[in-house]
Amino acid sequence: MNEPDFIAALRALPLHPGARGLADDCAVVSFGSETLVITHDMMAEGTHFRADADMADVAWKLVATNLSDLAAKGAEPVGVLLGHMLGRDDARFLEGLRDALAAFDTPLLGGDTIAAAGARALGLTAIGRATHVPVPARSGAQAGDGVWITGPVGRAMLGFEGAAEHRVAFDRPLPRLAEGRALAPLVSAMMDVSDGLLLDAFRMAEASGVTLALDPAVIPVADPALFEACVRWGDDYELLFTAPPAALLPIPAQRIGSVAAREAAPLLLGETPLTDPAALGYRHG
Amino acid sequence: MNEPDFIAALRALPLHPGARGLADDCAVVSFGSETLVITHDMMAEGTHFRADADMADVAWKLVATNLSDLAAKGAEPVGVLLGHMLGRDDARFLEGLRDALAAFDTPLLGGDTIAAAGARALGLTAIGRATHVPVPARSGAQAGDGVWITGPVGRAMLGFEGAAEHRVAFDRPLPRLAEGRALAPLVSAMMDVSDGLLLDAFRMAEASGVTLALDPAVIPVADPALFEACVRWGDDYELLFTAPPAALLPIPAQRIGSVAAREAAPLLLGETPLTDPAALGYRHG
Repeated sequence: MNEPDFIAALRALPLHPGARGLADDCAVVSFGSETLVITHDMMAEGTHFRADADMADVAWKLVATNLSDLAAKGAEPVGVLLGHMLGRDDARFLEGLRDALAAFDTPLLGGDTIAAAGARALGLTAIGRATHVPVPARSGAQAGDGVWITGPVGRAMLGFEGAAEHRVAFDRPLPRLAEGRALAPLVSAMMDVSDGLLLDAFRMAEASGVTLALDPAVIPVADPALFEACVRWGDDYELLFTAPPAALLPIPAQRIGSVAAREAAPLLLGETPLTDPAALGYRHG
Repeated sequence: MNEPDFIAALRALPLHPGARGLADDCAVVSFGSETLVITHDMMAEGTHFRADADMADVAWKLVATNLSDLAAKGAEPVGVLLGHMLGRDDARFLEGLRDALAAFDTPLLGGDTIAAAGARALGLTAIGRATHVPVPARSGAQAGDGVWITGPVGRAMLGFEGAAEHRVAFDRPLPRLAEGRALAPLVSAMMDVSDGLLLDAFRMAEASGVTLALDPAVIPVADPALFEACVRWGDDYELLFTAPPAALLPIPAQRIGSVAAREAAPLLLGETPLTDPAALGYRHG
């Protein structure tokens, strides 16, 4: 079964209302007097990291990518649970894990450690506390809103391809936790850009039932000569959000477009309608 | 790195107070006006299930074993997050997942689906709500308490080895959720028996700093002719608990021993002191 078919089948199971139809970055659950925000991501050798990757960077990325999902919901991390398959360089993995937990001030809550043969798979569950309700969703973009991004895209791609000054962007991404918390009260929709700006903007447009019109002249990219690649590569973990055009943003962000009532295409890049998500970004399992 | 060394290294990282030193079935976190109980377990092909296993049973067991950890804390399930690696018989997996979620009245909250090569690894995070605080721990057994178990051990072993009437005990174990909730207010310590009665009783004794003295004549086993194997095999998911001897139990349970102040051995089986956990049960990664 492929991923879209499997996820479609999961949607036919009994879903918690906080699952948001399995179409958002996190689940959101009212719990006592507060709101729990929770996410789980896996990384597998060969798919998400190379067999010769520095396991310290893998551990960092496992933590950072999950916390980025919390950031996109304006949530403050409470702790993480690690699902660890023992293997090569576990001591290095532990160093990267320690670095990431310290950097993001997030403690370990628990998890599971297993021994198994074959390619390694690692999982992380991140638990957060909403700092603002309603918790921002991908689905809230409204016609008339502006579209913003918190920083440039393409740095992780340049780092992956060998540019020394961008290597850290690929190896040790930073979840935009403070930015997400600052933005949560005023955005109409928010998500992190993990799979490429165009693909993720397409998903926000689909979830919201609107068209996002992006202006290529103002999208911040790490290398303008590689514009088309920069807007399709993922792993930068900037926050993409919509808000009323007059919103007073509490942090620096670049306005890159506007939200319109739904047209034929969910996404416009300048004059170009984009309708096929398969052509928009990186999908890696 | 082996599992004990890795877990020891994890304990040196910043731990959440609710992590309970990574020595309990679940993490326990005060959240708003309530208490969150959370656990994550992985299952890998070749280690936890055979390459030819019915994937519907694997899905059931993945849910049931995590909910058993919630049961041991008296928690009521809120939902689960699935970390799924696509592979053989995903449609069967979905059937078993649907059956288990329906049987335990637990909705899906979210998760992640990945494609990867090699042996499969699956993860599940279960979120629960404590029904009684303080939430029972492994570490609360007191000298003078009695020791009880909610049912016989060894049925899963007999089922694994081919006994038709016990097959369901191995393939589709039942978490003792109602029993755990009923017991939580009156136990001094509680855990589920996942890795074998003797090994898990040893762990409870170690966590509590006491000696558990078990009477082999009254331990309920599925086949008395295989007593030694029954008390060492795992996968039955009965609840093991301690309570004051005069406690009025709200559910049927078999008293199997007593708690004493710490002697030389953490565990006594009749007159036999047991000091080496490696000889007590099944460890499978």
